[in-house]
Amino acid sequence: MAITDMTREELQTLQEQLRKQYEEYRAQDLKLDMSRGKPSSEQLNHTNGILDKLDTYITRDGVDARNYGILDGVPEVKELFSEVLDIPVDEIIIGGNSSLNLMYDSMCRNWIHGAGGHTPWCKLPVVKWLCPSPGYDRHFAICEDLGIEMIAVPMTDEGPDMDVVEKLAAEDDSIKGMWCVPLYSNPQGIIYSDETIDRLASMKTAAPDFRIMWDNAYGIHHVYAENKVKDIRKAAKQAGNEDRILYYFSTSKITFPGAGVAIMAASPNVCAEIKEHLAVQTIGHDKINQLRTLHFFGNAEGMRNHMKLLGNELKSKFDIVLATLDRELKGTGLLTWHRPEGGYFVAVDTLEGCAKATVALARDAGVVLTNAGATYPYGKDPRDTNIRIAPSYPTCEELQQAMDLFCVCVKLAGVNKLLEDN
Amino acid sequence: MAITDMTREELQTLQEQLRKQYEEYRAQDLKLDMSRGKPSSEQLNHTNGILDKLDTYITRDGVDARNYGILDGVPEVKELFSEVLDIPVDEIIIGGNSSLNLMYDSMCRNWIHGAGGHTPWCKLPVVKWLCPSPGYDRHFAICEDLGIEMIAVPMTDEGPDMDVVEKLAAEDDSIKGMWCVPLYSNPQGIIYSDETIDRLASMKTAAPDFRIMWDNAYGIHHVYAENKVKDIRKAAKQAGNEDRILYYFSTSKITFPGAGVAIMAASPNVCAEIKEHLAVQTIGHDKINQLRTLHFFGNAEGMRNHMKLLGNELKSKFDIVLATLDRELKGTGLLTWHRPEGGYFVAVDTLEGCAKATVALARDAGVVLTNAGATYPYGKDPRDTNIRIAPSYPTCEELQQAMDLFCVCVKLAGVNKLLEDN
Repeated sequence: MAITDMTREELQTLQEQLRKQYEEYRAQDLKLDMSRGKPSSEQLNHTNGILDKLDTYITRDGVDARNYGILDGVPEVKELFSEVLDIPVDEIIIGGNSSLNLMYDSMCRNWIHGAGGHTPWCKLPVVKWLCPSPGYDRHFAICEDLGIEMIAVPMTDEGPDMDVVEKLAAEDDSIKGMWCVPLYSNPQGIIYSDETIDRLASMKTAAPDFRIMWDNAYGIHHVYAENKVKDIRKAAKQAGNEDRILYYFSTSKITFPGAGVAIMAASPNVCAEIKEHLAVQTIGHDKINQLRTLHFFGNAEGMRNHMKLLGNELKSKFDIVLATLDRELKGTGLLTWHRPEGGYFVAVDTLEGCAKATVALARDAGVVLTNAGATYPYGKDPRDTNIRIAPSYPTCEELQQAMDLFCVCVKLAGVNKLLEDN
Repeated sequence: MAITDMTREELQTLQEQLRKQYEEYRAQDLKLDMSRGKPSSEQLNHTNGILDKLDTYITRDGVDARNYGILDGVPEVKELFSEVLDIPVDEIIIGGNSSLNLMYDSMCRNWIHGAGGHTPWCKLPVVKWLCPSPGYDRHFAICEDLGIEMIAVPMTDEGPDMDVVEKLAAEDDSIKGMWCVPLYSNPQGIIYSDETIDRLASMKTAAPDFRIMWDNAYGIHHVYAENKVKDIRKAAKQAGNEDRILYYFSTSKITFPGAGVAIMAASPNVCAEIKEHLAVQTIGHDKINQLRTLHFFGNAEGMRNHMKLLGNELKSKFDIVLATLDRELKGTGLLTWHRPEGGYFVAVDTLEGCAKATVALARDAGVVLTNAGATYPYGKDPRDTNIRIAPSYPTCEELQQAMDLFCVCVKLAGVNKLLEDN
């Protein structure tokens, strides 16, 4: 029987049991972190070879990577990413260690200088942004930092609700763009459908300088199946909107989060616009680390094989999360969740008004989850239901403990709520 | 006899000789580059140990540097810089591989968000900046990129002409700051005097958000003597202006230009202001490279000893430049120059209106110098006299060839000019 169908008396009995269970967990004094998409030490160990002595610092073209020069990335390293992501070499710009930093810089560049020759966004009375939600809190933080007004757009199983997106983008020229995590979206693991991508690429926008921040963070981060989304850059080009797409990727979750290589891709026009300012910002990013990355993988095949290894490890963790949710919460009516095929997260939805309470209960018993609300603009989940579970960092044993506790917290918060509302 | 005192006939005879000499050089088909302050491969070889296998990626506090985290730098690496530069650990922020990038970001941050709670600079009708000149072209490029109006301020042997600086800063509140390279200034190698530094630290500025971009690029880059400038951060604090100073430094010319570690330092107020936005911009810079740098040097003493080695090598190049200028041009009346005790450059001044012609002659004979004018805002040297010689990159043999040719070019351009004006 679904817990949501229980009588008041049944709920009270269950509440007593859950309270006892919860107190037993609290007594264990757990200290577990499922708040961020951090790789585990075990996963990182697979990349330790990248720390070995680097023998060749001369690029294929004979450039000394130790010295100044090469603004936008070592050519053979661009080729590696070009092959992995199917992007023309010339449309790739390699950055430092953080794709978030590349995104932040892109937003600041448009803020200060404008995009495509249009008015700098800082000169406009208001700039708005479409934020498919639940989404990635650090994307939203960039908007908040710049004072960009965020408009939450619902997610469907095929990506952002395109009826909403198209309507808003077409009618309001102060809407200058949107965030997208097209493959294994953060946090739900949703895969954008071909139709979604075609509509994003071709939709009419009131703003001529509308920009889609295409954060392909999990582009090759498969767990249960190797999915691929339609190439939005090609689709946008066909629709005459090639300047619309700013594409981002990094090896943060392929090699090391603290020392990866980030890249972006854009149309020739936009690349030229970026390089004009990038040439003022820096003489060049860390080319030695670019070479390390290439030498470690050898080629695209090497990187893909490495990701199979990592995906396999992550699979055991996703298995634990999903099996525990199935066992403890299926049919209770207290929780719904997505079954992602890749990425780093499992997103769940509690009963309305229970996400904060669930996260608070878990925290008080020593399990840190991403703050409830964080997956929505301004940290405000209007229905207070969404929670992001990040299972990558703990060991499997720790994760099982954390998930067991989590399910107790979901139930306790749910039962408390049902009794309140009764 | 000074060439400037020659009769027309004598000048014509000399011109003939110089043309022949010049053509002989041209026939040699040289390909030498003295345009940028690039370390030589020989110099970089001294740092190859930094490419060795890195065994410890765990920080002193037990943090896994491979993973996400630590926004503003690994504590023990901050301590290294703290000791080398005599800056409190808490006032240091470690960045990526480029101090130029840190400076650019600081300028953009103030542009977008304002400094010290004052109006964002992008909201002001005009922002002006004091540019001690000759100066560093990449500093000027940042101003130009942001549309900041640059005001050239003359240099004296003690740093920027402080009478001019104080007057301008006091009377115009749209002047929001200035560039400074206090030790071995780029390009002249001037060492700011204690009085200059005290006046910069304590002067009245009409703008309450006046910022001094203190680029201590050559802070430990000694060649002939180990100089040190007065601590402007302490002086500014004493004068109640501690938020005024933004301090920059990097290991680009200590380890590798392509893969160094950049830092900045600022008052606690300003550090807090920066970190608020930095936390949105990135999860953290490359901590592995920070550890590599620390492990390579061991400690501050190790870094200082390394700089003695590099300074000694650079000395042979400065010797060639200065000895050749002495031999070929002393007493001719055609050129004046500075004798730097450290840094990366030797700056010379030709007869008025001869710098461009000299650089063009050298280029046509295969020796690339920094563009004439580059050392002034907007690339416009009002008297067309200043040329920056960067002797670090060529081998000593190449440098001697380049300098011999350079002297011929200075003489030929000078003689041409004298004949024209006659």
